[in-house]
Amino acid sequence: MNGAQALIRTLADAGVTACFTNPGTSEMHFVAALDDVPEMRAVLALFEGVATGAADGYARMAGRPAATLLHLGPGLGNGLANLHNARKGKVPVVNIVGDHATHHVRYDAQLQSDIETAARNVSSWVRTSRSTGDLARDAAAAVAAAQGPPGQVATLILPADVSWGQGAEPVPPRAPAAAPAPSGAAVRAAAEALRSGEPAALLLGGRALREPALVAAARVAAATGATLLAETFPARLERGAGLPAVERIAYLAEFASTQLDGLRHLILVDAKEPVSFFAYPGRPSRLAPEGCAVSVLAAPDQDALAGVEALVDALGAGETAPPVQPAARPERPSGPLTAAAVCQAVGALLPEGAIVSDEAQTSGIYLTGATAGAPRHDWLCLTGGAIGQGLPLAVGAAVACPDRPVLALQADGSALYTIQALWTMARENLDVTVIVFNNRSYAILNMELDRVGAGEPGPKARSQLDLDGPGLDFVALATGFGVPASRPETAEDLLDALARALAEPGPHLIEAVIPPIF
Amino acid sequence: MNGAQALIRTLADAGVTACFTNPGTSEMHFVAALDDVPEMRAVLALFEGVATGAADGYARMAGRPAATLLHLGPGLGNGLANLHNARKGKVPVVNIVGDHATHHVRYDAQLQSDIETAARNVSSWVRTSRSTGDLARDAAAAVAAAQGPPGQVATLILPADVSWGQGAEPVPPRAPAAAPAPSGAAVRAAAEALRSGEPAALLLGGRALREPALVAAARVAAATGATLLAETFPARLERGAGLPAVERIAYLAEFASTQLDGLRHLILVDAKEPVSFFAYPGRPSRLAPEGCAVSVLAAPDQDALAGVEALVDALGAGETAPPVQPAARPERPSGPLTAAAVCQAVGALLPEGAIVSDEAQTSGIYLTGATAGAPRHDWLCLTGGAIGQGLPLAVGAAVACPDRPVLALQADGSALYTIQALWTMARENLDVTVIVFNNRSYAILNMELDRVGAGEPGPKARSQLDLDGPGLDFVALATGFGVPASRPETAEDLLDALARALAEPGPHLIEAVIPPIF
Repeated sequence: MNGAQALIRTLADAGVTACFTNPGTSEMHFVAALDDVPEMRAVLALFEGVATGAADGYARMAGRPAATLLHLGPGLGNGLANLHNARKGKVPVVNIVGDHATHHVRYDAQLQSDIETAARNVSSWVRTSRSTGDLARDAAAAVAAAQGPPGQVATLILPADVSWGQGAEPVPPRAPAAAPAPSGAAVRAAAEALRSGEPAALLLGGRALREPALVAAARVAAATGATLLAETFPARLERGAGLPAVERIAYLAEFASTQLDGLRHLILVDAKEPVSFFAYPGRPSRLAPEGCAVSVLAAPDQDALAGVEALVDALGAGETAPPVQPAARPERPSGPLTAAAVCQAVGALLPEGAIVSDEAQTSGIYLTGATAGAPRHDWLCLTGGAIGQGLPLAVGAAVACPDRPVLALQADGSALYTIQALWTMARENLDVTVIVFNNRSYAILNMELDRVGAGEPGPKARSQLDLDGPGLDFVALATGFGVPASRPETAEDLLDALARALAEPGPHLIEAVIPPIF
Repeated sequence: MNGAQALIRTLADAGVTACFTNPGTSEMHFVAALDDVPEMRAVLALFEGVATGAADGYARMAGRPAATLLHLGPGLGNGLANLHNARKGKVPVVNIVGDHATHHVRYDAQLQSDIETAARNVSSWVRTSRSTGDLARDAAAAVAAAQGPPGQVATLILPADVSWGQGAEPVPPRAPAAAPAPSGAAVRAAAEALRSGEPAALLLGGRALREPALVAAARVAAATGATLLAETFPARLERGAGLPAVERIAYLAEFASTQLDGLRHLILVDAKEPVSFFAYPGRPSRLAPEGCAVSVLAAPDQDALAGVEALVDALGAGETAPPVQPAARPERPSGPLTAAAVCQAVGALLPEGAIVSDEAQTSGIYLTGATAGAPRHDWLCLTGGAIGQGLPLAVGAAVACPDRPVLALQADGSALYTIQALWTMARENLDVTVIVFNNRSYAILNMELDRVGAGEPGPKARSQLDLDGPGLDFVALATGFGVPASRPETAEDLLDALARALAEPGPHLIEAVIPPIF
């Protein structure tokens, strides 16, 4: 068999059975080999940022990495922003980046560039496979590296001749590395802080935001009076009625500082110490108050669940009932469309088992409250701040979980970086409902322009943040990509459109034209 | 004044008076400072690949670099593919990439990444400005580096606090470096080869494809019987009735080899030795035949025009009349729409002084012939093979030359990488006519799949190259972005639509649904 065949077989045997693709000539042997491995699903994207964001969304929901197939340095470049998000979210991704044949590199043909250099921006593991005989082993190593712990981006560069060469053999998967439990000392230190009687909080991130760790953390909180906090933009948060509620740290440093105010102990569980998203003149980067001791119960490469469960034991909280979120839905909204009304409609109708890809930005500030008591669901956030993640993430989540409804709540400006994702939704008939919050501006930047203290903006500066000249027509864009779309004019019509979209299989887009919040 | 104000003033004083932007919070002081420098035009893009491709197109036509304004590592990543094309085309671009404030970097906030690493993939010159006092000097150095010779991509990374800091002063521009003339030895060697009586060709690229060098090279060819060839994908080729004609080397290695067959001397004038675009099993990468001596008259950092003029003198060809292309237009096409009919219509109607951005791929194979005798125009090609350049290039060319009609001839698959360029065309009311050749496939990959010898493709492989499930509706997409659009059904209707689009100011899109050529 040739290299490509052994590569795909090795990936599939290691559990990588989805590949999000945007191939070119140098990847044609990989493409031809897809038919030889029936387990491998290949999902075509029109743009590489869709492929990489979809691989991220897939892994968040499937619990195992997907592959991407990208075309040389420029293809990787186009995928870099969403790989940045995956890296920041500690989500495993295996990139296969085609390259020129090894003997062709020295001629510096048009598409030649230094792929490894670009790959290092996002990848903890980068390797150019040097021979057909090594390729399958390199692929198994890439999957193992991606799996971590913690999950990370691994990039395997595949020269065309390594792909087309004969004599390759698949390689069995490597046993995944187990995350070690946190040390007894870390558990004792956390228990001591929590028993001190001083204000304390557990800050949960990563794997600590899934049900088992949430339940254990809720026991700890109930037994000690500690606060439960979550990182600002988790990769995946399990929430809704019947699950312990956890308060996410606010995006705005001013609000985050208020949340953390008065704390004397902040215990990190698979989370980073909170810092300001951006720097602002004269304001601190760290958000924890002076005099607050920050300690680590479980680092990202450790077993967060084991850490919280050990803490439950150390505190004797095993019998403490974990408080959970009661079921509650907001009223159905009526009247004019506003960001709040759309959020309320989402809360009123969010189906059981939904997966929410949240890139609603400023328009989404009411979402957390509106959906807190909705039936149990998963919430996926923009982990690395590189906008244009929401629609691709929804693609990947829908491929991973074909039996669950996916809701993509999407800001207008952010949607336009990877709007091509709509076509993949149509092509694969994915059950995704997209709501675009169209406030016709980069509203968050209008706010940030004030916050950074850049003075009173002139007309040129203001025009840089305005998306209203011309206004974008998301119904037309969705139609162009093959997704049925509507633009309800009132809250009542939005409820109808949302109910219809959720009831019908396949993708739908709803454009909500709303005033900006700021 | 603050850093951003001094930076923009320095750029404008150095002739950089257009900035293609997609800013975020870390660039807000730059945005606020735009109003302080009236000469600086800021053109907003919805996606960074539009901004970088537009900067490329602007510089090709204006003869001086534009700036881009990008948001941290992910913003640069999104712009990388079109910067790759600029790099390969030796087109000057000055990137301003915002970064976190210097004191914020150590906190590894969500958008933190190693920007310099990603920048090196495309930039010959990369610098992170370390202090407000150095910023204007760094900017002047960036412009000088971009100008070359040869033109290149220079990336200046701008930490937010360096931008907002006070006490900066603008810096006067550096004198541009002059390209040295080629050595007398190189001229004598070329003259000797051309006098040998053996089959010889001049291969022109870069600056050698502008009128003065073309005229001189045509004298050389007429005096010696040498063939005039051009590189396959020039950044800018001046052509049409009244200018010397030059034959571009074919994309397909098979055809290129035929063009070069029998040559004993190939003389490079601001061009690379021709190599195969991709490697294919068992086929050579170099295209010049065995026994053909390849020599350099002028390297890319030398003055190609001076070199060709010295060659004219050495050959005593100063009085030789340069043969020029006679005026000729193809017949107006009629009947069903095909790629050939669209190319014919372009040839029939191409206006005097047009700028053509050519990313028509397989559908454009008749363009060269159909437009050879049209009124004088400029032809801009996909220089680095990273598709998604055509529409952004047209944006930049139209900003640089507001009085000239711009025609973007665009393949369907390639259009979708940077389709957001349509919105900037609408917003700036640019006089661009886009023709999309919609053959509903990655037709070039269907051809390449056969050429690489990957065997008979199965259904999964074929589906990776097919854009017909669902078919893309470019009229709807254009409408969504605010560009008036039509979909003529016959060649006659296409001629009408094209004539109307060319006659009316502002952008238009014409979707031509055609069968694939292969």
